[in-house]
Amino acid sequence: MPMLPEPVVLIGAGNVGYHLGRRLHDKGVRIAQVFSRDLRKAQDLALVVGSEATDQLQAVLSLDTGLYLIAVKDDAIEEVAGQLQPLVGAQCLIAHTSGTVSSTVLQPYFARSGVFYPLQTFSRDRVPDFSQIPFCVYAADEEVQEKLLALAHVLSDKVYPISDQERQVLHVAAVFVNNFSNYLFGIGHQLLSAEGLSFDLLRPLILETAAKVMEHDPDKVQTGPAKRGDQLTILSHLRYLQQYPEYQNLYRLISYAIQSGTTRKNQ
Amino acid sequence: MPMLPEPVVLIGAGNVGYHLGRRLHDKGVRIAQVFSRDLRKAQDLALVVGSEATDQLQAVLSLDTGLYLIAVKDDAIEEVAGQLQPLVGAQCLIAHTSGTVSSTVLQPYFARSGVFYPLQTFSRDRVPDFSQIPFCVYAADEEVQEKLLALAHVLSDKVYPISDQERQVLHVAAVFVNNFSNYLFGIGHQLLSAEGLSFDLLRPLILETAAKVMEHDPDKVQTGPAKRGDQLTILSHLRYLQQYPEYQNLYRLISYAIQSGTTRKNQ
Repeated sequence: MPMLPEPVVLIGAGNVGYHLGRRLHDKGVRIAQVFSRDLRKAQDLALVVGSEATDQLQAVLSLDTGLYLIAVKDDAIEEVAGQLQPLVGAQCLIAHTSGTVSSTVLQPYFARSGVFYPLQTFSRDRVPDFSQIPFCVYAADEEVQEKLLALAHVLSDKVYPISDQERQVLHVAAVFVNNFSNYLFGIGHQLLSAEGLSFDLLRPLILETAAKVMEHDPDKVQTGPAKRGDQLTILSHLRYLQQYPEYQNLYRLISYAIQSGTTRKNQ
Repeated sequence: MPMLPEPVVLIGAGNVGYHLGRRLHDKGVRIAQVFSRDLRKAQDLALVVGSEATDQLQAVLSLDTGLYLIAVKDDAIEEVAGQLQPLVGAQCLIAHTSGTVSSTVLQPYFARSGVFYPLQTFSRDRVPDFSQIPFCVYAADEEVQEKLLALAHVLSDKVYPISDQERQVLHVAAVFVNNFSNYLFGIGHQLLSAEGLSFDLLRPLILETAAKVMEHDPDKVQTGPAKRGDQLTILSHLRYLQQYPEYQNLYRLISYAIQSGTTRKNQ
């Protein structure tokens, strides 16, 4: 087993940085420092993981060994990398945690760089089951990739070498299954609110909808009026949705797609 | 507490009838008979719940007390009710389990009729947590409603008197959060398959997406490029989706809706 890249300097203390930092600490990986432009966030996390905090890039520690983990917003990664390089040197080991940003944005600045992407949705106040989070790891340099894989294995049972192209597809898919599903949950919430009905009525259904595809492929468990071809119900729903033109449009579009069996077609 | 309507004759042994029958039996409610046009299905369920089976409506038992529970397809409910009435009499207690069909379709045939709708998605091989299933109960007649409510309380901790109009809205909302979310899961599945990636990569994300809204309102936990206004990522995703015009269209539509904050608007 390759030596773990340790200690870790966390650049960013948002939701991803926060939970990654806590998990690293819980698994015995030393966090040397937490940087955030928001000093309060850096301090909050530093306190939990027993490290120091800073809001000054100039104050970021120079590591002989170890890893810089960049968990800042997608569009800030390249800028932060460019600013860090003269401070910490081009030879350090560095990775970002983004689902979308190419691994190549770090390469102009750092010889030993890669991607360390946990495929999960993080909120400050929910600790996810880290052992089940797929870690998508990539580095152009094989030794760097080995080190990142080794670190990922400390955090999770699900570790995958994933190329930039594959990660891009994963991220598109994640938008559909997470962001867009949550938007649909929001539609349910709004429809019920308008009638004075509690969202609690839908919660068990939502949980079961997700639970079903833990064991089955989604197209094997598709149900509902569109799948059954129940035109009377579809028409009655569309009539009700006349007061919400956007939802009506979405209802029509997805019902049509389900009926035409798009998800079962192969490319 | 009103007397339980017992025994129950189950008309229909599809997924809803099957799981309702099992739950009733488990809770000590006697099932007198199971009817299904598919004798095998009737027999399978009858065996589990210790009752007799038939595929002939003419052979359906006449109950002095008790309840006929119609769990057949939506568009067959009225026809079955019309055929049953001369066989079992207009005075029997009867309810259907549909999310969409009006309570009024039974009224021309039966004086004591109502709705007994478990708001959940049922598959043959998954036993859902019945105690958490919202039971939506309605009857025009108060005494009938009391009896149906009493029976629902035996099966679940979540029992609600729900009017026809409210149930219609619930069903539209259920289509969005269940059928349509599952369709989005299917898109994720297909995008990954096309790249040779396992759907397992998305499963923890899907489960967490549902888990989040168990505690929070969906619009409070909305994340992603559309919510952040990250146009570069959205454009890059749309470019990738050019090979799937329907998915591209859906991506554009929902991203736009999230950005314009539709779910946060109040009626």
